[in-house]
Amino acid sequence: MRVALAYSGGLDTTVAIKWLQEKYRAEVITVTVDVGQEEDFREIEAKAYVSGAAKHYLIDAKKKFADDYISRAIKANGLYEGEYPLSTALARYLIAEEVVNIARREGCDAVAHGSTGKGNDQLRFDAAFAALAPELRIIAPVREWNMNRDEEIEYALKNRLPVNPKKSRFSIDENIWGRSIEAGELEDPWVEPPEDAFTIVRPLRQAPDVPEYLEIGFRDGLPVSLNGEEMSLLELISRLNTIGGKHGYGIIDHIEDRVIGLKSREVYEAPAALILIKSHLDIEKLFLGRRFLAFKREVERVWAELVYGGLWEDPLRGAIDAFIDESQRGITGEVRVRLFKGSMSIVGRRAEKSLYSREFITYSREGLFDQRAGEGFSKIWSLETRLSRLRER
Amino acid sequence: MRVALAYSGGLDTTVAIKWLQEKYRAEVITVTVDVGQEEDFREIEAKAYVSGAAKHYLIDAKKKFADDYISRAIKANGLYEGEYPLSTALARYLIAEEVVNIARREGCDAVAHGSTGKGNDQLRFDAAFAALAPELRIIAPVREWNMNRDEEIEYALKNRLPVNPKKSRFSIDENIWGRSIEAGELEDPWVEPPEDAFTIVRPLRQAPDVPEYLEIGFRDGLPVSLNGEEMSLLELISRLNTIGGKHGYGIIDHIEDRVIGLKSREVYEAPAALILIKSHLDIEKLFLGRRFLAFKREVERVWAELVYGGLWEDPLRGAIDAFIDESQRGITGEVRVRLFKGSMSIVGRRAEKSLYSREFITYSREGLFDQRAGEGFSKIWSLETRLSRLRER
Amino acid sequence: MRVALAYSGGLDTTVAIKWLQEKYRAEVITVTVDVGQEEDFREIEAKAYVSGAAKHYLIDAKKKFADDYISRAIKANGLYEGEYPLSTALARYLIAEEVVNIARREGCDAVAHGSTGKGNDQLRFDAAFAALAPELRIIAPVREWNMNRDEEIEYALKNRLPVNPKKSRFSIDENIWGRSIEAGELEDPWVEPPEDAFTIVRPLRQAPDVPEYLEIGFRDGLPVSLNGEEMSLLELISRLNTIGGKHGYGIIDHIEDRVIGLKSREVYEAPAALILIKSHLDIEKLFLGRRFLAFKREVERVWAELVYGGLWEDPLRGAIDAFIDESQRGITGEVRVRLFKGSMSIVGRRAEKSLYSREFITYSREGLFDQRAGEGFSKIWSLETRLSRLRER
Amino acid sequence: MRVALAYSGGLDTTVAIKWLQEKYRAEVITVTVDVGQEEDFREIEAKAYVSGAAKHYLIDAKKKFADDYISRAIKANGLYEGEYPLSTALARYLIAEEVVNIARREGCDAVAHGSTGKGNDQLRFDAAFAALAPELRIIAPVREWNMNRDEEIEYALKNRLPVNPKKSRFSIDENIWGRSIEAGELEDPWVEPPEDAFTIVRPLRQAPDVPEYLEIGFRDGLPVSLNGEEMSLLELISRLNTIGGKHGYGIIDHIEDRVIGLKSREVYEAPAALILIKSHLDIEKLFLGRRFLAFKREVERVWAELVYGGLWEDPLRGAIDAFIDESQRGITGEVRVRLFKGSMSIVGRRAEKSLYSREFITYSREGLFDQRAGEGFSKIWSLETRLSRLRER
Repeated sequence: MRVALAYSGGLDTTVAIKWLQEKYRAEVITVTVDVGQEEDFREIEAKAYVSGAAKHYLIDAKKKFADDYISRAIKANGLYEGEYPLSTALARYLIAEEVVNIARREGCDAVAHGSTGKGNDQLRFDAAFAALAPELRIIAPVREWNMNRDEEIEYALKNRLPVNPKKSRFSIDENIWGRSIEAGELEDPWVEPPEDAFTIVRPLRQAPDVPEYLEIGFRDGLPVSLNGEEMSLLELISRLNTIGGKHGYGIIDHIEDRVIGLKSREVYEAPAALILIKSHLDIEKLFLGRRFLAFKREVERVWAELVYGGLWEDPLRGAIDAFIDESQRGITGEVRVRLFKGSMSIVGRRAEKSLYSREFITYSREGLFDQRAGEGFSKIWSLETRLSRLRER
Repeated sequence: MRVALAYSGGLDTTVAIKWLQEKYRAEVITVTVDVGQEEDFREIEAKAYVSGAAKHYLIDAKKKFADDYISRAIKANGLYEGEYPLSTALARYLIAEEVVNIARREGCDAVAHGSTGKGNDQLRFDAAFAALAPELRIIAPVREWNMNRDEEIEYALKNRLPVNPKKSRFSIDENIWGRSIEAGELEDPWVEPPEDAFTIVRPLRQAPDVPEYLEIGFRDGLPVSLNGEEMSLLELISRLNTIGGKHGYGIIDHIEDRVIGLKSREVYEAPAALILIKSHLDIEKLFLGRRFLAFKREVERVWAELVYGGLWEDPLRGAIDAFIDESQRGITGEVRVRLFKGSMSIVGRRAEKSLYSREFITYSREGLFDQRAGEGFSKIWSLETRLSRLRER
Repeated sequence: MRVALAYSGGLDTTVAIKWLQEKYRAEVITVTVDVGQEEDFREIEAKAYVSGAAKHYLIDAKKKFADDYISRAIKANGLYEGEYPLSTALARYLIAEEVVNIARREGCDAVAHGSTGKGNDQLRFDAAFAALAPELRIIAPVREWNMNRDEEIEYALKNRLPVNPKKSRFSIDENIWGRSIEAGELEDPWVEPPEDAFTIVRPLRQAPDVPEYLEIGFRDGLPVSLNGEEMSLLELISRLNTIGGKHGYGIIDHIEDRVIGLKSREVYEAPAALILIKSHLDIEKLFLGRRFLAFKREVERVWAELVYGGLWEDPLRGAIDAFIDESQRGITGEVRVRLFKGSMSIVGRRAEKSLYSREFITYSREGLFDQRAGEGFSKIWSLETRLSRLRER
Repeated sequence: MRVALAYSGGLDTTVAIKWLQEKYRAEVITVTVDVGQEEDFREIEAKAYVSGAAKHYLIDAKKKFADDYISRAIKANGLYEGEYPLSTALARYLIAEEVVNIARREGCDAVAHGSTGKGNDQLRFDAAFAALAPELRIIAPVREWNMNRDEEIEYALKNRLPVNPKKSRFSIDENIWGRSIEAGELEDPWVEPPEDAFTIVRPLRQAPDVPEYLEIGFRDGLPVSLNGEEMSLLELISRLNTIGGKHGYGIIDHIEDRVIGLKSREVYEAPAALILIKSHLDIEKLFLGRRFLAFKREVERVWAELVYGGLWEDPLRGAIDAFIDESQRGITGEVRVRLFKGSMSIVGRRAEKSLYSREFITYSREGLFDQRAGEGFSKIWSLETRLSRLRER
């Protein structure tokens, strides 16, 4: 049996290499996907081989991540429960795609991932693997072996696997769209997240004493420039993470509902994601009318639930994206952002073809309706309300 | 004819006193409702009489405003288009209620309001008046007379009405739940709102150099205490406006869709409203499950649209509030808030009967599901997604 | 160990009595709930004791079913996917409630149900049992033993359990709110359901040659009379099943989505449920306005999904029912129904306090708006549509 | 001034020709659009010229109506408030389009329609005209002149306009997608619509004594064949109107909410529309999953509200149609329909690439999940429900 394993270099997936060999007599091909995590990829490769990998792949998918996944999230204002920019969720689908590609190239019989049975990631990997490659068996060693952490470490030591005593007291997942921090004292939702939990966002007391202003340019719903300079989405994200982080901006701290029905306290840092989504929300309001915005907000909620819940490959997501793509045509303009000591404010927006324009309003005031129109509208608008009350008497 | 006029003391309603007398030969009774605006109410009374009012009423409705209107908005997380806390909208219904009460006591034939035909306020007054007192005629002088500003001033001068040249270049509406600032340079949505537009929120450069932490206590969905001290909702709002404003927090700047189909750039300052709604959103997550939250968010959107759109008296609003009241039972706990140089962050939350609790999670992990449950769930959860993809092949 | 088992008298639950004794060394108390199924309850009791039950309970819950469960479904126009009146789903919650009551009275350690792992019923029983009695263990023998049908029969024969060779080629579930028919040739969704699948609905060729007219009276949203005669909901349902069935009306045939993600072809007969829900939908339109109806239709979809999906005990269902109860106040009037050869049509409706009334319309035409109001309304109603198109040029 | 007038040949638009000449000194070009109404178009042309039209156009738009408008309604299962197939609404947009085309060809300054200020049609014409041709003035003579019916007739007689005393006591609008019947005794919603109100649907007592079976074929969501014979949508609609009507099927009788807030009792006959939409709803269920269907049903409601409410040209309708088009790819199969004495039943459906298939189910049962998966799913599915109840104790 040949297995392509999504390999992070951490304890779980390192143990999994050995375990897959033992349990399934499998030849294990490890696949590490670079989505922007801060890691030493040479060290990861070395670990893979030391642990028994037959072959190792490192795939730089950062640009693909930005262009094919994050761009969709921006247009969809993708925030699960209004808070979480879906950073880990989105990356899982990309990783699954890359692992399937390698599995096919290498003629594998199975694909494997390191998710547990208690979280959301298993839903993402399981569904994406099965949708993309129904012919491949899916193995989830961690879910299967039922070892606890100490047993895993013991297993690793016994098998001389290169695992470190954990460097951090937190459990981390990281990519260009955000960094999630779990465990440790964060499990008490009353405790404020400590400064050392964060690596992108600087402590407030180190933030500059003067605000910084940015101009973010959008074309057809996607951000394309910073302060007038056109750049790739990947580059833009990278710069905004740095700038936002410098000003202490980008932390999310909320109670999140996992699909499996448990609440967890989740802490993220995601300066670029928040700046871009909030700017997109703002520029969008220049173009879409009242009814369109109200409807799109509902659609966005469903989009975020699908993506959070492992259902990226569901045809419904595709059809919703057809709606969203159509909605974004012509959304071209600029947003002005102010960053200062932990806060981000949108302080201006402009666009040539905006629905808002003083000329329109002036034109409207005189040409499209007069005061009498307002009176007629008001009477009819609430007619059923008034009749309902009249009936009750 | 006897008319009860909602009287603010401003140009429009002052001119309206005289105009109602001339046009309708009406005896005008002016009603000023104190909802927390910063005004000299003696001066307003004097103005009313000088302008020809037969009788003047001043009604202090601040407590009623907090208890009967704002409390509903908090439970509903009432933010129109995700931004505007509905401060003016909510107050209009209360003012309409008070004016109708006076109209009945005084045996009036009509009620009058000073709204134009171009905005949202006419919808609120017209519908509330008609729903509460279908037997009373509604007169909207400004909509009817079709004078522009200069003509109004001329009319006032000619009739020796006590109107000042406008003190501010902005158009203001204010109450305890928020203050809206319009016109002037704000009509260009690219221009950052200037410091002098704001009276509650202090300039960032004057904000204290150390963060301030607050603990807000909730009982059955409503805020009842600050830093452990129980107080009325009105008192709590007043304190939070002061504290939030001191730290430069509470400004809203967005493009808003009026019901009539025009976009306008709206600027508000509403520290207490934002602090309380965001805290409420957070504490709520400790109690309501994934499905409940998703559904309530949609319900809230509809609630905010009804309230924004003049339809407070619609039976649908009442039925939605029955849902919301039921949802809030047992939402009792505390939220910890940090204010600092223009930003407000929720940094902790706790509750005795929370759905989140480390014990539950531990209990759940062992008792309510195991790793195999996760696998079974994952397979079934995405089954239709996978079958859909299989079918496409 | 003492177990209270929901007992239908069929193969699965009969085998379960013995199996629970063997596998868990349990004392089994069987509970049969009469929800209107056509069964010989004495025979069922005999079967239970022969199969080893320590004690047997028969509970007539028909009235409770109508008053506490079906009444909610009527007010909610409960049709899953617009088709299925939730007859089996609703009954499961009632059965669970009765089984829990007995379990407590008898000091049981566990409750048991006969659902498989492939359908919706397990979701209903599992959730209701756990919500009502978290202290009791839940056992689902059929899901656990993994026998197929032949193995079950063999087990029964070997243990001399009183099971008949299946009388019908169909799999049936029945109560006063509907009868579901599955399996056999119905598994091919292209095949028309044969006449002998149905016992309530008579063949079309036997239907009377003249239409029959009914008048159904509603009070506060619930049906209370037939042709002017007041009667209990239970009695009304019973009569409408007979009358509807006589005219060949009441068959549902559709493709249904089980929660687990599989589609199944489902066939039901439910004359009373369809007549009452369609009549309720009609009378409701006399009272609720355009916005209210649109919103309630969405709420109803969620309600039906919760009830179909096992989540009767979820707090969300309770909060939605608070909304629905509030919406039904004052919905009092009559609906006129015509039944004829397989069709049911609503041909009239009236109510004293209807929003519809010719007087209102006439009054409205002259008093509440004039032609100019229409013009003003029309201009403003589509203003954003027109501005959007203008912008595109 | 040159005006292009949407001309039906009825009283209102005939009077409008003369009135436009008198009031606006306009040269009137009449445009009659054939959308399938039963009319003598030569007589209409003669009427137009006799009444003073400078030029008359007759445009056969039946095929365009089917292909560009009705096809969208079928894919959207377009039924306003679940009942009305939007026949008049859809046709209004097409008529507006044709009138604008003529107006441009003829160099007109204005377009005109005969709708009153009390109904929905003004919203459709006003918005469509303005969106398609913002440079043209819109005139609505009936709304403007404020004559009542008797005054109109007097005006016609005085000006020797060729208007007949009304042939029917009903007010009719007709096209291939449906026929609406208003006024007369129908204004009392308690009165059953009389047989002579209908021209497409035959009286029940004349319906054949044997059922008729039809097979309707769909390709990518659109109906393309009848009983195996491929035909144009227009032809299919025509045939189904005849067949459905022969069996007494196709009547709709309900209380409808006009956009302006008034309820009206509406009666329609629309056999083809109902047969096609119900068949489409059924075939769709073979392809779209549980989540997709639930979401599409909500989207459809919004689509129907937009189309009913005059907002065909709103960008939101376009974006929703992008979603719907995407959803319909691959929806290819057949539906079997039975018509008999006023009822229409779907008795079978099949498709090669259906999500439903016995093989899938069998495969699924063994391959995609086992009984243990069901148990795991069930536990997790209702976890938050159970925790919520536990918390309450």
